[in-house]
Amino acid sequence: MNKIEHIGIAVSNLEEAIKTWETLLSTPCYKKETVASEKVDTAFFKTGESKIELLGATSEESVIHSFIEKRGQGLHHVAFEVDDIRAEMQRLRDAGFRLLQEEPKRGADNKLVAFLHPKNSNGVLVELCQSVSK
Amino acid sequence: MNKIEHIGIAVSNLEEAIKTWETLLSTPCYKKETVASEKVDTAFFKTGESKIELLGATSEESVIHSFIEKRGQGLHHVAFEVDDIRAEMQRLRDAGFRLLQEEPKRGADNKLVAFLHPKNSNGVLVELCQSVSK
Repeated sequence: MNKIEHIGIAVSNLEEAIKTWETLLSTPCYKKETVASEKVDTAFFKTGESKIELLGATSEESVIHSFIEKRGQGLHHVAFEVDDIRAEMQRLRDAGFRLLQEEPKRGADNKLVAFLHPKNSNGVLVELCQSVSK
Repeated sequence: MNKIEHIGIAVSNLEEAIKTWETLLSTPCYKKETVASEKVDTAFFKTGESKIELLGATSEESVIHSFIEKRGQGLHHVAFEVDDIRAEMQRLRDAGFRLLQEEPKRGADNKLVAFLHPKNSNGVLVELCQSVSK
């Protein structure tokens, strides 16, 4: 794990949340992207070497909609940058962690991503992500 | 806000959680510290320029105990490093954010800290922190 790549925050109203976090972080949202497969709109902010990713549901079938229904808005996941996502997935599997998918999938921000089951990591949804350009 | 200083994670059993996160992050816990005023034991890990802080309650009166009772283990807060915490608190107050204390207080890891009310930040408990040596 090289660094915190980003923190994902589930929000009810993405446009209002963008204004809030622009003020809070004193930095503009530099990218918005829809991830159709996940039914989410995302908005990114830079903070040091990491990013804040706001996540808004585009449908009631989105996991972000379910998360907010159950727990309210708030911290949703933490993503760590890795150099070789498949090697890291195998290392964690061998150490007894459970992954939510067998193979990495395409996420927002031009990344290959995979998630760990939060039961193995103290309730924290952990994402691994590797830049596709690497 | 210079960078993500750390992410705080509420855990039920600190010693077991330390083993989990040492494996997950491939890095040893480099510091443990008790914050008596908050009734928490903390454990720190480095990841890039940021840290992961595990938080275990030392008493049922700890806010970490209440958090876990209500929501289960998981992501508890995100802390941003600032150069001048009083100036940043004033900037955020002027922008309509509500702070959980009037004055910065002494936190773990030799920091002055202050928290924003999560109602103004999409349910996210945001900590500001300034190194005391600065």
